Amino acid sequence: MISLVAHSFWAPGCQGGRRSMATIISGIKTSKLVRERLKMEVDKMESHFSGFRPSLVVLQVGDRDDSNLYISSKLKAAAEIGIDAKHVRLPRTATQDELLQSIMSVNENPSVHGLIVQLPLDSVSPINTELITNAVSPEKDVDGLSCINAGKLSRGDLNSCFIPCTPSGCMELIRQTGVSVEGKHAVVIGRSKIVGAPMHDLLLWHHATVTSCHSKTADLPEQVGRADILVVGAGRAEMVRGEWVKQGAVVIDCGINYIPDATKKSSKRVIGDVHYTSANQRAGFITPVPGGVGPMTVAMLMENTVQSARRFLLKMNLS
Amino acid sequence: MISLVAHSFWAPGCQGGRRSMATIISGIKTSKLVRERLKMEVDKMESHFSGFRPSLVVLQVGDRDDSNLYISSKLKAAAEIGIDAKHVRLPRTATQDELLQSIMSVNENPSVHGLIVQLPLDSVSPINTELITNAVSPEKDVDGLSCINAGKLSRGDLNSCFIPCTPSGCMELIRQTGVSVEGKHAVVIGRSKIVGAPMHDLLLWHHATVTSCHSKTADLPEQVGRADILVVGAGRAEMVRGEWVKQGAVVIDCGINYIPDATKKSSKRVIGDVHYTSANQRAGFITPVPGGVGPMTVAMLMENTVQSARRFLLKMNLS
Repeated sequence: MISLVAHSFWAPGCQGGRRSMATIISGIKTSKLVRERLKMEVDKMESHFSGFRPSLVVLQVGDRDDSNLYISSKLKAAAEIGIDAKHVRLPRTATQDELLQSIMSVNENPSVHGLIVQLPLDSVSPINTELITNAVSPEKDVDGLSCINAGKLSRGDLNSCFIPCTPSGCMELIRQTGVSVEGKHAVVIGRSKIVGAPMHDLLLWHHATVTSCHSKTADLPEQVGRADILVVGAGRAEMVRGEWVKQGAVVIDCGINYIPDATKKSSKRVIGDVHYTSANQRAGFITPVPGGVGPMTVAMLMENTVQSARRFLLKMNLS
Repeated sequence: MISLVAHSFWAPGCQGGRRSMATIISGIKTSKLVRERLKMEVDKMESHFSGFRPSLVVLQVGDRDDSNLYISSKLKAAAEIGIDAKHVRLPRTATQDELLQSIMSVNENPSVHGLIVQLPLDSVSPINTELITNAVSPEKDVDGLSCINAGKLSRGDLNSCFIPCTPSGCMELIRQTGVSVEGKHAVVIGRSKIVGAPMHDLLLWHHATVTSCHSKTADLPEQVGRADILVVGAGRAEMVRGEWVKQGAVVIDCGINYIPDATKKSSKRVIGDVHYTSANQRAGFITPVPGGVGPMTVAMLMENTVQSARRFLLKMNLS
């Protein structure tokens, strides 16, 4: 495995010695590597199976600016890899039934391998998001958000499910460090459906001893201090302080928090859930924000789409 | 809440002082309490809804002695509570398709609220247990073993799922101690689909900080030593030593291990995964084996069946 980590050193004046800072795990470089690998695989699929290409549908209700931005980055990544991605838009006036009908029609279309419904739904009608998420066929649910995929992941059936993209990206970043997960003590902060809860499952089934922390955890600094691998998806700016971090730990920061910054054109900048400058002095490896977990999410969505196509081809070959 | 715990004392000769031993959490008494509560509820259902009774089907393939024993205790508990339980037997020669057909016919029968398939399947034909478990309608899956129910539990949707009976029984025993789970550090040993994995979820969504340990955990004694609440479902006789246990902890032992015992008529006796006599001296509360978690499992199956009937009535009333 090629390591995509950048090493730097810090020489504190008062101590006179050279002290190692954390190795930075680049999500920009790692996601590029994933996308290049996928492109090669898709090229092979295309030549071996007479023009076959993985296909993805992105279903959007409404017209939120942030959703438009996310979708365009997904479409761009798909195009570069050779995935045939289609953006289907429903108006803000679309009803739950209309959205369900669109989902069913993609579910039943054998030439589509992946389907995601862009969240949050921007609709004037009341729509039950849970119902929508679970209407996507589990075999095409490349966001990995349906109950069936969550159930498989949580019970260790990793090979037949789709893993949500952010935790899957975190695992890829941990892999880049070369640190083995098995037998390590991992701590996950947060228990959301898209980050914390599936991250626990993924680390557990890669054989780490895993502690799940959250807003009700009484002794967070102490729990963090025991983590060989720390994954933070709390949604609170810089809540994890550097002095809590175990010396040499792998620190993965899923936080995306905007704070005002007058020096920026946009008047804001993004920071993580970990206080980077202090954590950097104790961690062995650390992801930056931005440029860490963020770029991995789209790459892993592409990975899931190619995986779905791979399963489709396998089924065709077997049948 | 009535506490069903028995207190005892131990006076070590050499120290001269009286030292408190753990309070024993009786599964026999707690399960009786649950069954009595359910009987009252079922009586009310019957009088309010003109003879309505919760109904359970137990589907068995083959004729294993241990399965026969388990099933008879389920049927007995159901009869006592007033649940209409039916035992459906398929011969050992039954095929997967025949079993699936039986499941479908119960799924489609609106007068049945709960369906369990007794495992392991005792069949001469190859049958995919996973497929069978997931063929049971999630709305009738009172064993809580389908992917959909596991997914809901793992992501915190506790009110719309069925919780597997053993972890559910453990929670009931923890409740009996009066110790609050929220904010406590819970440690679960084992990650099986029927005990460890759902136990983690259940403790997590009752807001404990939860550590999942298993065969690859490097420092088990240390992890155990940090548990305010310890649930052990490892399947290894007396693997947890008393000296590991945190002073005052709640210790729940799901182990059922048979060891030879010449003094018994059956030449064997059952012991747990925790070394009881030593753990008893450090724990604040402890479940015995037998008479702890064991009797709770059947009681919680009855609880799930009544819950399913409750949901059915609610749906009928709303529609």
